[in-house]
Amino acid sequence: MIVDNALYHEGVRVPLDDGDPSLGHARVPCGRGDFQWVGIHDPTEEELRQIARTFDLHPLAVEDAGDSHQRPKVERYGDTLFLVLKTLWYVDEDDAVETGEINLFIGPDFVVTVRHGQGIDLSTARRDLEQRAQVLEHGPMAVMYAICDRVVDEYEKVGASLEIDVDEVEESVFSPARTDDSVRIYTLKREIAEVRRAVMPLREPMRRFVQAEVAGIDEATATYFRDVADHLHRVSEVIDNLDVLLSTAFDAHLARISVQQNEDMRKISAGAALVVVPTLIAGIYGMNFDRMPELQWTFGYPFAIALMVSVSAVLLWFFKKSGWL
Amino acid sequence: MIVDNALYHEGVRVPLDDGDPSLGHARVPCGRGDFQWVGIHDPTEEELRQIARTFDLHPLAVEDAGDSHQRPKVERYGDTLFLVLKTLWYVDEDDAVETGEINLFIGPDFVVTVRHGQGIDLSTARRDLEQRAQVLEHGPMAVMYAICDRVVDEYEKVGASLEIDVDEVEESVFSPARTDDSVRIYTLKREIAEVRRAVMPLREPMRRFVQAEVAGIDEATATYFRDVADHLHRVSEVIDNLDVLLSTAFDAHLARISVQQNEDMRKISAGAALVVVPTLIAGIYGMNFDRMPELQWTFGYPFAIALMVSVSAVLLWFFKKSGWL
Amino acid sequence: MIVDNALYHEGVRVPLDDGDPSLGHARVPCGRGDFQWVGIHDPTEEELRQIARTFDLHPLAVEDAGDSHQRPKVERYGDTLFLVLKTLWYVDEDDAVETGEINLFIGPDFVVTVRHGQGIDLSTARRDLEQRAQVLEHGPMAVMYAICDRVVDEYEKVGASLEIDVDEVEESVFSPARTDDSVRIYTLKREIAEVRRAVMPLREPMRRFVQAEVAGIDEATATYFRDVADHLHRVSEVIDNLDVLLSTAFDAHLARISVQQNEDMRKISAGAALVVVPTLIAGIYGMNFDRMPELQWTFGYPFAIALMVSVSAVLLWFFKKSGWL
Amino acid sequence: MIVDNALYHEGVRVPLDDGDPSLGHARVPCGRGDFQWVGIHDPTEEELRQIARTFDLHPLAVEDAGDSHQRPKVERYGDTLFLVLKTLWYVDEDDAVETGEINLFIGPDFVVTVRHGQGIDLSTARRDLEQRAQVLEHGPMAVMYAICDRVVDEYEKVGASLEIDVDEVEESVFSPARTDDSVRIYTLKREIAEVRRAVMPLREPMRRFVQAEVAGIDEATATYFRDVADHLHRVSEVIDNLDVLLSTAFDAHLARISVQQNEDMRKISAGAALVVVPTLIAGIYGMNFDRMPELQWTFGYPFAIALMVSVSAVLLWFFKKSGWL
Amino acid sequence: MIVDNALYHEGVRVPLDDGDPSLGHARVPCGRGDFQWVGIHDPTEEELRQIARTFDLHPLAVEDAGDSHQRPKVERYGDTLFLVLKTLWYVDEDDAVETGEINLFIGPDFVVTVRHGQGIDLSTARRDLEQRAQVLEHGPMAVMYAICDRVVDEYEKVGASLEIDVDEVEESVFSPARTDDSVRIYTLKREIAEVRRAVMPLREPMRRFVQAEVAGIDEATATYFRDVADHLHRVSEVIDNLDVLLSTAFDAHLARISVQQNEDMRKISAGAALVVVPTLIAGIYGMNFDRMPELQWTFGYPFAIALMVSVSAVLLWFFKKSGWL
Repeated sequence: MIVDNALYHEGVRVPLDDGDPSLGHARVPCGRGDFQWVGIHDPTEEELRQIARTFDLHPLAVEDAGDSHQRPKVERYGDTLFLVLKTLWYVDEDDAVETGEINLFIGPDFVVTVRHGQGIDLSTARRDLEQRAQVLEHGPMAVMYAICDRVVDEYEKVGASLEIDVDEVEESVFSPARTDDSVRIYTLKREIAEVRRAVMPLREPMRRFVQAEVAGIDEATATYFRDVADHLHRVSEVIDNLDVLLSTAFDAHLARISVQQNEDMRKISAGAALVVVPTLIAGIYGMNFDRMPELQWTFGYPFAIALMVSVSAVLLWFFKKSGWL
Repeated sequence: MIVDNALYHEGVRVPLDDGDPSLGHARVPCGRGDFQWVGIHDPTEEELRQIARTFDLHPLAVEDAGDSHQRPKVERYGDTLFLVLKTLWYVDEDDAVETGEINLFIGPDFVVTVRHGQGIDLSTARRDLEQRAQVLEHGPMAVMYAICDRVVDEYEKVGASLEIDVDEVEESVFSPARTDDSVRIYTLKREIAEVRRAVMPLREPMRRFVQAEVAGIDEATATYFRDVADHLHRVSEVIDNLDVLLSTAFDAHLARISVQQNEDMRKISAGAALVVVPTLIAGIYGMNFDRMPELQWTFGYPFAIALMVSVSAVLLWFFKKSGWL
Repeated sequence: MIVDNALYHEGVRVPLDDGDPSLGHARVPCGRGDFQWVGIHDPTEEELRQIARTFDLHPLAVEDAGDSHQRPKVERYGDTLFLVLKTLWYVDEDDAVETGEINLFIGPDFVVTVRHGQGIDLSTARRDLEQRAQVLEHGPMAVMYAICDRVVDEYEKVGASLEIDVDEVEESVFSPARTDDSVRIYTLKREIAEVRRAVMPLREPMRRFVQAEVAGIDEATATYFRDVADHLHRVSEVIDNLDVLLSTAFDAHLARISVQQNEDMRKISAGAALVVVPTLIAGIYGMNFDRMPELQWTFGYPFAIALMVSVSAVLLWFFKKSGWL
Repeated sequence: MIVDNALYHEGVRVPLDDGDPSLGHARVPCGRGDFQWVGIHDPTEEELRQIARTFDLHPLAVEDAGDSHQRPKVERYGDTLFLVLKTLWYVDEDDAVETGEINLFIGPDFVVTVRHGQGIDLSTARRDLEQRAQVLEHGPMAVMYAICDRVVDEYEKVGASLEIDVDEVEESVFSPARTDDSVRIYTLKREIAEVRRAVMPLREPMRRFVQAEVAGIDEATATYFRDVADHLHRVSEVIDNLDVLLSTAFDAHLARISVQQNEDMRKISAGAALVVVPTLIAGIYGMNFDRMPELQWTFGYPFAIALMVSVSAVLLWFFKKSGWL
Repeated sequence: MIVDNALYHEGVRVPLDDGDPSLGHARVPCGRGDFQWVGIHDPTEEELRQIARTFDLHPLAVEDAGDSHQRPKVERYGDTLFLVLKTLWYVDEDDAVETGEINLFIGPDFVVTVRHGQGIDLSTARRDLEQRAQVLEHGPMAVMYAICDRVVDEYEKVGASLEIDVDEVEESVFSPARTDDSVRIYTLKREIAEVRRAVMPLREPMRRFVQAEVAGIDEATATYFRDVADHLHRVSEVIDNLDVLLSTAFDAHLARISVQQNEDMRKISAGAALVVVPTLIAGIYGMNFDRMPELQWTFGYPFAIALMVSVSAVLLWFFKKSGWL
């Protein structure tokens, strides 16, 4: 579905004669420095084919743009740049990271943005950008920068949410309560792996933008991409760190299971001793010897019970003291 | 066995005078831009020797082509390119990945494809390609591209099947049932190692094709190989990710074994307490003291039994409450 | 808050006409080789904006300077260098590493230092530097060197404190006492990760200073940065080493838990035997056979008790000998 | 000991006037393209000194050649190449990998091969090579190729033997039998480390031969070394893979020990229940209450025994059903 | 303390007019190719300052030379080379590796060696070198080579000692005796880390000497440094290998602890059965049924004892057979 379609002249949106955005795929002639920006969401094959025809896009790039399982990358086809970005957002209800995809075709006088799935709201991004004519003036590369910036900002938010999750896991692992944290740790590791797959491959395209190795990016623009690259670097450090922390937390979890088992075993043994020793005493007074003076005592029975109780009390005291109970 | 042998003129199959494919090894004279494509399956040494003589192939390459345990690689011998590809396919019945091998000799006016084992069906690949004259027109490199593309597509299918397997393992590990998942995880790790051995070494040849470092590949062709390289990259990321997930799943499996042992131990101990405490009571009333008032009570015996039952009931309630039973 | 503001002429502090440091953001005209140094602490947005206007700083760098969660980096904006340093210090009370941040803008004739949080006391650094006119003479780069040197010196102190902590953990792990060291090890690993995040990214800027790849650094200055880089390298080696030691210590901790569980189990079993065997003897003499000669013996009862005691004594001796008790 | 000494003229062995090989160290004058090949086995210091004098070898290289604990390497001393190879062979009886060493001095018109220990039989290699005059014709580099090829072929055989060993370990780990596989796995890891120390450092010399970076190797010869390098690469992949598999197998081994311990614990507990519950029943009927109707029953005793047996039978059935026995 | 001070002319020691070595810091005028060698041990700050003045050494290098906690490195200050080496030696009594430090200042016509701590005896090294005038003739670089060579030789000895230690640990781990090897393994890992910190950073300086990237080293000298670099490489391989072996040995140690616990548990359970089953029998004959024929038997009591013994014997035989005892 074509979501929006406009011409930008000196950084300002120009109303197209034909307001119907669905006709956007008819190429709009541009003046020097101007460009057309077509936004598409979950396109049909037919829509992609029309767009491809209008802007003369390479079939391999168009094929990739129709598929929402690309890895982040930048590719040059003639004078058109093709950029794939993964979008990430954190769903609080599920403690889960969701992924979407944005494909950008950036030509000398046009930008085509193809969004798959939810995530970053490109129309807000467009409206924000339209407020900043001095940025839009720089043409298609400014649009690419604005979108990359927004996508990477979302990465940072996701990173922050995962940091909170890891803190929770950490607390749970070291709490005295018996918790089975392995499922939680495993799930978080999976999420982190997913974030990594979005973040890591994007570093190479960013590096190329920063070093102005890509035609159309001058030094001034590169400075802005350096900012994005720096944020990306920060996210990737956060992610790496969380991964290592989770592994360490998991090891600590294993250690605690062992320690708890040990404590349980000692508690159980101490508890058993409290029963087994009186049983022995009972057994002794259950023997059938003819001559057992205690048996004839008036208070023999209370004496035996008292003996059992006091031996147990001594044991209890001993086990408490030595930390077994 | 020579499976097929044909001349391609401007991308179109030309019937050879002598339709007998077994005579294919007699070199067919080619016009400019035309090429001959000989397909062989599990060749005998004699067949390889004849082919080598016909197309003047280097003895070291021919030796490699006769052996089905090569690692993926590309080598240049004079103006002939020698490419080794591992083919992979997933056998549903065994949950196993099988491997085959394809060797390609690509000369300026010929292609020789040598297939070992099952896997990719090259004759279908050829028939598909024969439908696309505009691709075949590009000569031998187009054939190489088509085969690489198909082989890597199979890798992606194998990767997807393994992802399902890993999901199953994951579910099994975290299910409450007691499952011994270590065999399954080990087997999957082995399969993944096998896939990795097919996928990883192929990245270097692809990189060289993409960067048009190999004579015979121009920029337009390189774009197509970039597509293949990108898919290859995706597969390798999937594989790496699965490997890491399996390791984490294995750790979680270990943790669960420990947790279960701990739970078992507590269950057993609680169960034992239910028997041992009544035994102590029985022991007490089995003592032979002259004066034990309960023994003369009319309802002494039912009282003792009731005492045992109620103590056990209290213990049972206590253990249930504290999660030991 | 603007903390200090001065002009340095030939390495000597020149009293500004207007002594009010809060007016420091009004640019002071400099002679050749002279420079102005403005020190700010936890600036408001307004202060940053004024400073930016005065020294014509790039908006992206100013934005970074306002945020205290940057990663260490050096960036060039026109002829201004922007350096981000993390400061570290060890708080004895909490056994914890705290982090702050220093941002430096180094222009041809000015230095702006922006400090976030506690940590390195820049005013002391400034006063020390003012004692060494022959260093200050070298201009803004000398200030940058002095601050880097001081920051890295603090890193070394932090490294030394962590070494002591790791030694303590090590001692605790291998002490015969039962200690649950996993929390401590985990916390230390977290601290080390934090130190690493301050230290590691700084190596690349230092490398560039050492190799005089950054305009404004000549070979003589580079020699001084080489010294800083060398110290940084030492810190990073210390940190890496501590990390590895902690991992090994953790593994040893796990092993000891297992060994202790084993010892406990043997102790418990031996203890149980000391009770269970006499119980069997008591059971035997509790049997109701008509003919059991011992039962009629005068000293039958003491004999039975003696039998129990001596069997237990033999068991005790045996378990002591074989190390079970 | 000088084992063999001959002059090769146009690839054909020329009988030396003095057939006594022990005099071989007297330099034989060579025609253009001809070369002398001296083979030594476990040389004395004196022999090495003579050879060094005859062929003007560098003292450092000669010192290395006298020591059988070199690491694989290639070094150039003037126009002489010095190559160190580790030989490997698998001793079936001990399931062990043994290592030897071959040093090669390759000059423009001579080859000196110094063999330490057993392993590759160089005299067979020489005889094989003497059959192939067209190879020997290429001079000393052909000898170097032939020996490298043979050494690496042996590596592949060793790799194959280790693969069988790892398969056996794997089978043992996953067999239901209780096997202590840790010794075996440790030993195999040691062997693999030894193989790695022979294989890995050789890759760099081979790379240099393949890229014809070494004087005396032209492109045609490089093609042959590429074949050797390829085999070496294969071996190193096999070795890496085996190492990873062994680590995974070891983890699985650990998991199985835990699982077995758990099963044992449950078996033991179930067994104990079969004894403890009847003991409780016996205890109850051992109580001394005046009124216990069962005690007067004619079949009270058989009833009690039957009760014990049937309770045990129920428990047995229950434990069987729930998999504890 | 200045230990020795001499002038070397054409490789031969020249007696200085003033034989008092403590005056050595007065610079001695040298002829072409001659050089002065001052040896210092644990210098005071004052001594260092004098030496620095005499030979015009850079203050940063002098500061480093006064501190015995440098990392190995080479640095160029003008035409003076500053080299830091760690010395290692193995103390048999403690099974410990000790470290010292040697700093070298190498100028065009002087060498200053500063030794911290024990370890390599530089005066012996000097006397050995004075025997080899043809080496000393090469000037200061020959001294640097001789010291590096000696230091690295010591590394190899330390490596060999550690190999013996690791062999001992290995034997202990796999011995049937119950040994707690984790302390030993941990300590060895620490030692190895210390060796690594001495060895690894030295590889980069050596590489630069070998590739003659350092002024003053010609190709002939580089050949000698290549020998040192090769030995260094060998040591680092030995160290890496020992580290990996220790990790594997530790894992095996963990596995054995588990296996032993399992065996203990089975032994204990079997032992318990030998007591518990007779107790049940005693309990049965302790029941108070009116009609229990065995109780009236003449040999009822011996029969009961015999029953207990034979049941225990059967159990014993069974447990022996199944390996539980």
